[in-house]
Amino acid sequence: METREFTPSLEQLVWTFGGAAPVMRIRPGTVLRLWTEDAFGGRLRSSSDRPSALLDDRYINPQTGPFHVEGAEPGDTLVLHLVDLTPARDWGVSTTFPFFGGLTGTDRTATLHPALPERTWIYPVDRAAGTVQYAALDSDFRVDLPLAPMLGTVGVAPAAGEVRSSLAAGPFGGNLDTPQLRAGATCYLGVHTEGALFSVGDGHYRQGEGESCGTAVEGAMRVTLLVDLLKGGAPGRPRIEDDDHWISVGSARPLEDAWRISQTDMVRWLASLYGLTTMDAYQLLSQTCRAPLANVVDADYTAVTKIPKSLLPAAVAYDGTHRRMRLAAAGL
Amino acid sequence: METREFTPSLEQLVWTFGGAAPVMRIRPGTVLRLWTEDAFGGRLRSSSDRPSALLDDRYINPQTGPFHVEGAEPGDTLVLHLVDLTPARDWGVSTTFPFFGGLTGTDRTATLHPALPERTWIYPVDRAAGTVQYAALDSDFRVDLPLAPMLGTVGVAPAAGEVRSSLAAGPFGGNLDTPQLRAGATCYLGVHTEGALFSVGDGHYRQGEGESCGTAVEGAMRVTLLVDLLKGGAPGRPRIEDDDHWISVGSARPLEDAWRISQTDMVRWLASLYGLTTMDAYQLLSQTCRAPLANVVDADYTAVTKIPKSLLPAAVAYDGTHRRMRLAAAGL
Amino acid sequence: METREFTPSLEQLVWTFGGAAPVMRIRPGTVLRLWTEDAFGGRLRSSSDRPSALLDDRYINPQTGPFHVEGAEPGDTLVLHLVDLTPARDWGVSTTFPFFGGLTGTDRTATLHPALPERTWIYPVDRAAGTVQYAALDSDFRVDLPLAPMLGTVGVAPAAGEVRSSLAAGPFGGNLDTPQLRAGATCYLGVHTEGALFSVGDGHYRQGEGESCGTAVEGAMRVTLLVDLLKGGAPGRPRIEDDDHWISVGSARPLEDAWRISQTDMVRWLASLYGLTTMDAYQLLSQTCRAPLANVVDADYTAVTKIPKSLLPAAVAYDGTHRRMRLAAAGL
Amino acid sequence: METREFTPSLEQLVWTFGGAAPVMRIRPGTVLRLWTEDAFGGRLRSSSDRPSALLDDRYINPQTGPFHVEGAEPGDTLVLHLVDLTPARDWGVSTTFPFFGGLTGTDRTATLHPALPERTWIYPVDRAAGTVQYAALDSDFRVDLPLAPMLGTVGVAPAAGEVRSSLAAGPFGGNLDTPQLRAGATCYLGVHTEGALFSVGDGHYRQGEGESCGTAVEGAMRVTLLVDLLKGGAPGRPRIEDDDHWISVGSARPLEDAWRISQTDMVRWLASLYGLTTMDAYQLLSQTCRAPLANVVDADYTAVTKIPKSLLPAAVAYDGTHRRMRLAAAGL
Repeated sequence: METREFTPSLEQLVWTFGGAAPVMRIRPGTVLRLWTEDAFGGRLRSSSDRPSALLDDRYINPQTGPFHVEGAEPGDTLVLHLVDLTPARDWGVSTTFPFFGGLTGTDRTATLHPALPERTWIYPVDRAAGTVQYAALDSDFRVDLPLAPMLGTVGVAPAAGEVRSSLAAGPFGGNLDTPQLRAGATCYLGVHTEGALFSVGDGHYRQGEGESCGTAVEGAMRVTLLVDLLKGGAPGRPRIEDDDHWISVGSARPLEDAWRISQTDMVRWLASLYGLTTMDAYQLLSQTCRAPLANVVDADYTAVTKIPKSLLPAAVAYDGTHRRMRLAAAGL
Repeated sequence: METREFTPSLEQLVWTFGGAAPVMRIRPGTVLRLWTEDAFGGRLRSSSDRPSALLDDRYINPQTGPFHVEGAEPGDTLVLHLVDLTPARDWGVSTTFPFFGGLTGTDRTATLHPALPERTWIYPVDRAAGTVQYAALDSDFRVDLPLAPMLGTVGVAPAAGEVRSSLAAGPFGGNLDTPQLRAGATCYLGVHTEGALFSVGDGHYRQGEGESCGTAVEGAMRVTLLVDLLKGGAPGRPRIEDDDHWISVGSARPLEDAWRISQTDMVRWLASLYGLTTMDAYQLLSQTCRAPLANVVDADYTAVTKIPKSLLPAAVAYDGTHRRMRLAAAGL
Repeated sequence: METREFTPSLEQLVWTFGGAAPVMRIRPGTVLRLWTEDAFGGRLRSSSDRPSALLDDRYINPQTGPFHVEGAEPGDTLVLHLVDLTPARDWGVSTTFPFFGGLTGTDRTATLHPALPERTWIYPVDRAAGTVQYAALDSDFRVDLPLAPMLGTVGVAPAAGEVRSSLAAGPFGGNLDTPQLRAGATCYLGVHTEGALFSVGDGHYRQGEGESCGTAVEGAMRVTLLVDLLKGGAPGRPRIEDDDHWISVGSARPLEDAWRISQTDMVRWLASLYGLTTMDAYQLLSQTCRAPLANVVDADYTAVTKIPKSLLPAAVAYDGTHRRMRLAAAGL
Repeated sequence: METREFTPSLEQLVWTFGGAAPVMRIRPGTVLRLWTEDAFGGRLRSSSDRPSALLDDRYINPQTGPFHVEGAEPGDTLVLHLVDLTPARDWGVSTTFPFFGGLTGTDRTATLHPALPERTWIYPVDRAAGTVQYAALDSDFRVDLPLAPMLGTVGVAPAAGEVRSSLAAGPFGGNLDTPQLRAGATCYLGVHTEGALFSVGDGHYRQGEGESCGTAVEGAMRVTLLVDLLKGGAPGRPRIEDDDHWISVGSARPLEDAWRISQTDMVRWLASLYGLTTMDAYQLLSQTCRAPLANVVDADYTAVTKIPKSLLPAAVAYDGTHRRMRLAAAGL
């Protein structure tokens, strides 16, 4: 397998899915070793830093990419296997933006309240212990939390010539903010444009389900990806597979629509995996799925539906792609 | 501890929270051994049974109760510890009601589509193996799934003289349909009326998160409860504690409001457990919580927020009530 | 026609639909001359009055009633024609409750913001001019606004033994808070219990569409109603007819579900009035309806769908009941 | 005033806001005489035409434009005064797309229902009578409805380099689908990019509020616009002014968020027009506004808040721009 490396310069960062020239052309089967900047462009570095003073809310979630995958055409299935995610800094950061987050009035859930206080928490990383440290700002409370690296954004160029902010999510993937995008996961994305033009970014050193305050423990990340391409078979929405689960991802507002998208997609996936009718698959889903929230804060909320493989007979999705990726990754 | 038993006759079933005379007066500290009928009043028994022919949708989720707890006054905290849930029949049942469920038009998400097909699945119980068997109706696919008994409904009489259908949920608890209400869990409910007047029902032999098709593997249940009372301290919404988690429960529509209710309640709970300010608790929640959906099908959707105790320093909620309940239950 | 009068004493006020004994039994065809207390029980009388100090949020919207209509059985259609609504005081009042209203965090759209300021506006009534006067609290701005009396709540006892707060709305009617409930309107409500047990209250001297801050210009009202009964034909949701419009009313959350309820009901109504198929009625509705919001603040939001009669050929609903009511009212 | 004319060729049609080179550079003060193609690119012409066979759902709502306005910079206010809208064909058309519309499952409100029937209605235009004719497909019912021409889409290039489908709406305007965009209306849009790059399209010969089935009486349109520019003062969301109303426009999902956006914007507008505090403006809005829905079917739902000028003392918005536009239009 060919290995390519890419660390974007400041000028190479992009804040959209679609709309940017590719930084590299790669072949299916390539190993990518990347560096991703944190959601804030590295500008928040101290608990006294205020996001409203230092950040432009149009330029959040800088992307590493886009990458042009040779041979990728609309209707194909892009395969991104996350081999490794390693924090690239010895600190992460979380903050409360004015009018952004799940438990505040926002630009959409528009109320007449003044903004909640703007605060910034710095999380030192202890690589040896595998932890980040939460420290309360207003008291002495501290606790070490396990590192659980994930990528917030994984997406391709959208359909129909759209260019979407790296805060948005949809059929093209994007700002999914689900902890399922961790090392060992294989992500399937429908291709909408020639070359797919995918990018990744928004590394989280850890995140609760829902990403309630609007930001995770954000941090620059070293990312190792295996990139592959399946001709045809594009899923309508992002799907994820890991050793333990099949996962469908829905992004929309209101939250029940995000859930409905992921659920109906999983009904179809189960029907296909086990040769079930729609109603039989609906029933099987109803008694077996897990439904953790991903985020309820982004431009588009994301909900996921997970089926534990352990509950069901062995089945093979996407011609065994995930297993093939795991084997290839083990050989790196 | 005093032990009381109660198996309702057909005439004693009730379909509301509030509005019914108590079937029994009990003292705090009582062990209750109960029998609960299934959601359908036991009327669906074969895959050829059609709910629209056999059921009246105003009479779903029959309750066992209500029980009058001596000394319970508005503002107090009712404690219900689920000691044991054992399937009372050797089969469970699930079905698709016309215009009920998560992936169909409903009486609220009203569309012009005809109803989805009305189907009924019977799940044989294998007690020795600890499984129920899913069998597809339209093919030969079968799979044994682990028994995971839980209660769909746990509630008290609502505030302000309201009487709510046993399909509804709210500050009084009710049709929460969360798998968290399993053996080993302690449920805290605010008392709204003298005697609390709580009831339980709607046993599920297992349920996926979201209860997508509208019904779980429904089944009659033998229920052992420990009932206790804390003076004052009524939580605004139902809370649950088990050995591993603190859990806040929100019920509302749209789904993001159910989530917001559970999240803001957990922010306050964390603030209280660890002496944190609101913003510090909001941040801690954001990086540690789990947010599985309970149901997206009932009259009121339910979302839960869970904090894994393993992530945080030891802390004691409700004066150690949960641990006390566990010890008492172990002695039964 | 028989005329009955009723002015509730303080002890006779009720705050629920269902759950109260009737204050009077009346025959279909009766003229009722009623007095309704304002939403706050008359307790807010000055701009220095604070609702949180003076009100119990479980006891808002006191009802005048319930009235038992002789012969009314489940499945029948209760007809309430609003003959006259006259302000019963020379002042109205509006206020901002903490955590209540459309542009604030609430107990459901739960956020971490402190409450918006609690303010009270008194509106003097000028009967001769037909106006109420808005006066800003923080500046000298004043403006006279036209009196536009309406009833916020019109409802019957709910189905299945439920008792609902007079803040709630649903198939039983209730806290609809739509300006369509003005003099000259005929309201059709499905009967769920013997005697229908309807009540009215929550008079508004005027209200914007949406009732944004949570309260209208609230005021005690003298109400003249014509009560009638149609055997059978119960509409699934409240309907209103006036000289100019057919109106369907939907109450639910999220707001799109309230809208969907009213829209699908109107599709069926149009199909029935003009002998159209569902798809033809859907198309006709799409090009002719008006869709003003009623309220986006109550326990259940309410949206209405209006069809201007002037756009369509003459048609007769409910056997000409509205016209009959208008003629009868003219003769009073 | 300079007058410019533009009729796009087939190759000049665009289906996005942003992302296309300007077709013309114009100076503020220009009169534009334009031709807009219908939402379906003119491809649906008979009741036997099926949209799924003839249309690509990525290419709906072709735009006429974009136009580069000289001197327009981010933060400025683009003024588009609709002088005249005249149907350009003697027929309009409406249809039901599979999985598109308000009373059907969709790609977002994803259910397991098969699509509703796909039907197409042709509306002959009678210019002399000023009507379009609705004819039922499944019966003989026909009715002439008044012509009420409006533009469904009016938008500029979005912020931050986004390119949005002409089905989307947001701070950039876009697919608002509100009947308020009729002749005599002045639309104020914030400028996000140099030159503003606005376009218009999606003419409707008439539309009900909500655009329930997903499409209005769609038709090609001759459009006369007056274009002007105000330096600075960009509104956060589209605003509209006509002789009778001030109008704020909110686009989002769920529908209550669209409403909240328009309402909070109007609170601020009223505060500014009359020197009121936020709470006083909130109160005034609550008793005076009208809240008709625009559409509940697009990618983003749109709600509007209207304040009748007749209710309030005379006030001048945007330095009298609307009156100036009306006078200039009268002189054409």
